[in-house]
Amino acid sequence: MKNPLKTIRETKPLVHHITNWVTIYDCANITRAFGALPVMAHAPEECADMTGISSALVLNIGTLTSEIIDSMLLSAAAANKKKIPVVLDAVGVGATRFRDEMAAKILGSVRVDIIKGNYSEIAKLAGENAETKGVESTSISADPEKVAKEFAKSSSSVVVMTGKEDVISDGNRTFVVKNGHELMGSIVGTGCMAASIIGSFASVNPDYCDAAKDALCYFGAAGELAAKKSEGPGSFKVNLYDEVFNLSDEKVQDMMKVEEL
Amino acid sequence: MKNPLKTIRETKPLVHHITNWVTIYDCANITRAFGALPVMAHAPEECADMTGISSALVLNIGTLTSEIIDSMLLSAAAANKKKIPVVLDAVGVGATRFRDEMAAKILGSVRVDIIKGNYSEIAKLAGENAETKGVESTSISADPEKVAKEFAKSSSSVVVMTGKEDVISDGNRTFVVKNGHELMGSIVGTGCMAASIIGSFASVNPDYCDAAKDALCYFGAAGELAAKKSEGPGSFKVNLYDEVFNLSDEKVQDMMKVEEL
Amino acid sequence: MKNPLKTIRETKPLVHHITNWVTIYDCANITRAFGALPVMAHAPEECADMTGISSALVLNIGTLTSEIIDSMLLSAAAANKKKIPVVLDAVGVGATRFRDEMAAKILGSVRVDIIKGNYSEIAKLAGENAETKGVESTSISADPEKVAKEFAKSSSSVVVMTGKEDVISDGNRTFVVKNGHELMGSIVGTGCMAASIIGSFASVNPDYCDAAKDALCYFGAAGELAAKKSEGPGSFKVNLYDEVFNLSDEKVQDMMKVEEL
Repeated sequence: MKNPLKTIRETKPLVHHITNWVTIYDCANITRAFGALPVMAHAPEECADMTGISSALVLNIGTLTSEIIDSMLLSAAAANKKKIPVVLDAVGVGATRFRDEMAAKILGSVRVDIIKGNYSEIAKLAGENAETKGVESTSISADPEKVAKEFAKSSSSVVVMTGKEDVISDGNRTFVVKNGHELMGSIVGTGCMAASIIGSFASVNPDYCDAAKDALCYFGAAGELAAKKSEGPGSFKVNLYDEVFNLSDEKVQDMMKVEEL
Repeated sequence: MKNPLKTIRETKPLVHHITNWVTIYDCANITRAFGALPVMAHAPEECADMTGISSALVLNIGTLTSEIIDSMLLSAAAANKKKIPVVLDAVGVGATRFRDEMAAKILGSVRVDIIKGNYSEIAKLAGENAETKGVESTSISADPEKVAKEFAKSSSSVVVMTGKEDVISDGNRTFVVKNGHELMGSIVGTGCMAASIIGSFASVNPDYCDAAKDALCYFGAAGELAAKKSEGPGSFKVNLYDEVFNLSDEKVQDMMKVEEL
Repeated sequence: MKNPLKTIRETKPLVHHITNWVTIYDCANITRAFGALPVMAHAPEECADMTGISSALVLNIGTLTSEIIDSMLLSAAAANKKKIPVVLDAVGVGATRFRDEMAAKILGSVRVDIIKGNYSEIAKLAGENAETKGVESTSISADPEKVAKEFAKSSSSVVVMTGKEDVISDGNRTFVVKNGHELMGSIVGTGCMAASIIGSFASVNPDYCDAAKDALCYFGAAGELAAKKSEGPGSFKVNLYDEVFNLSDEKVQDMMKVEEL
């Protein structure tokens, strides 16, 4: 897409989240900094209605409970009906059986357009041998690019594996995004924020693979700019928000480090 | 009131919140920065007891569930009995029927001393035609000053409508506060923080209309000071906390932009 | 212990939290800044499994519900079985009967290795006459050092009382830590963060009394360094994260202000 950021800032899409209690504020705030409007609503009595007025749905199972999963299913069904993109951030899959089962339940019950996770979370979802240390990726034996591509094919979803290099695939096209900075891993929540940004970009771009690739390039570019001025995770996070706020499509154009395989 | 900030800092009132999971930390932290003591407690087994040792109660329905509403009713009843101020931040009213109904349930069951929301939230509560885009105000056809005044009369509450200009009315007096800066809208949570500040000011000033007006002037003044040093929402938020912390009644006195209609 | 920080950063222990919704992000983020890996998971279906792959368990009752207490008991039982340290932050004990009862229930049902609270919270737990103003300590009549020592003996736990001076005792050894800065009290959550740090240090040091003492020295030292550059709670918090991130065992060695009684 040519000017995704400009488009988001002009159309201000509403991005509905059902997410975890750790990074919920940062999911909301980064969505706002990119120019979209975040809303968080998980009550079963209203979640489908809220999705119904939204342009994207972001699900994040970081602090899941069975009740929250039920609300996610209600909202995802509403999103499927409205044909707006559903993003699933599979936080912690590979750490406990409950997470594995609930992620499988979501994927088996509703259409998820974009499945996102770190290397071990996605590998586990894809049926590989993988374990997640809490919510932290461990090294996987399989080749990430192959995992992403094949899982995208078998799931008919866009698959996003985040890490030092991000891999995005829809089964046909596979991109590797090399934007970003190691300080992004020094703060909690950049993974969750990435899912919110992917949801925001997908809300204005029907090519979800392209949207996910753009989202990670833009976020990574902001991270690179912020890192230059930062002395640690505290100042990095402050600068990250400032840089996202002051980002433009033109600025990112010259910074994108993306490769199509 | 002459020196509201000094009074808060000297008496350190306990301000009980039952609020949303997105901005709960900022509600607590801004309350502390103004000199009051925040406490968050929503369990039905204790919420009325916690209200019973508090000097104000702030209710915020940003991520409401029916269980949370039940706790709000228990706490509000305790607050009514103790005659301490109850603030309701009607987040997202006008976005889903559930929010409309739950807000109506609160207003119909207990005494709310100060009803706060953005333009479309309050317009919807007041029976006007209005829709809220998630938790974001949309433009309303009615005149905000008229809405605030009439809704204050009919509800016998102080009504606070926040936006580019804030309107505060108790039905007799109507104030327009023009303090503030657009960067306040660039971060999530300044609306929720405003409700916490109103609760803190109302806990030391029995004239709730005056307290709400002061609260918004003080917060807006801090926002103006912070904006001067900021390059985006990240640095703005840091500076906002510093400015609130370093605020004094004298400093704000010269900055207040308030008009009585 | 000689190099606790280096050890944490090399072994990256997983620290499982069941905590409150106000400061959950800061608990996670400070754990990460010290080099450990935080994970938050409270669903009864998975919390014991998550504890089972962790190296420490931190329980914080800041926004407790009876369901959360049930999850805490499941996780604590798993921690006891695995013989990993359990830290209880007794937030708000002395404010409501429900908190008193739930804290007593935890202490009566499972082994808690480290009991932490502010002066009035611990005094109340220890059976002294004490009241907590929400989650804020009030002055206690008893001698903190005596309370800590005797409660440590009677509970067979390490007891940590935080305040202007921190008192740590295992019943035999009693330490007073004088590191820290008053700006730490200007932001919400430093108490909760201290519990997370204690959990992180205890996960690599079987001498829990030593671990708790070190944790408070290191955190306090970072607070002192951060305060030098800060103009208020906003900049202080940013600098606190940067200083923790850039801390080393060598740096803290020269700053420790600890006394053994």
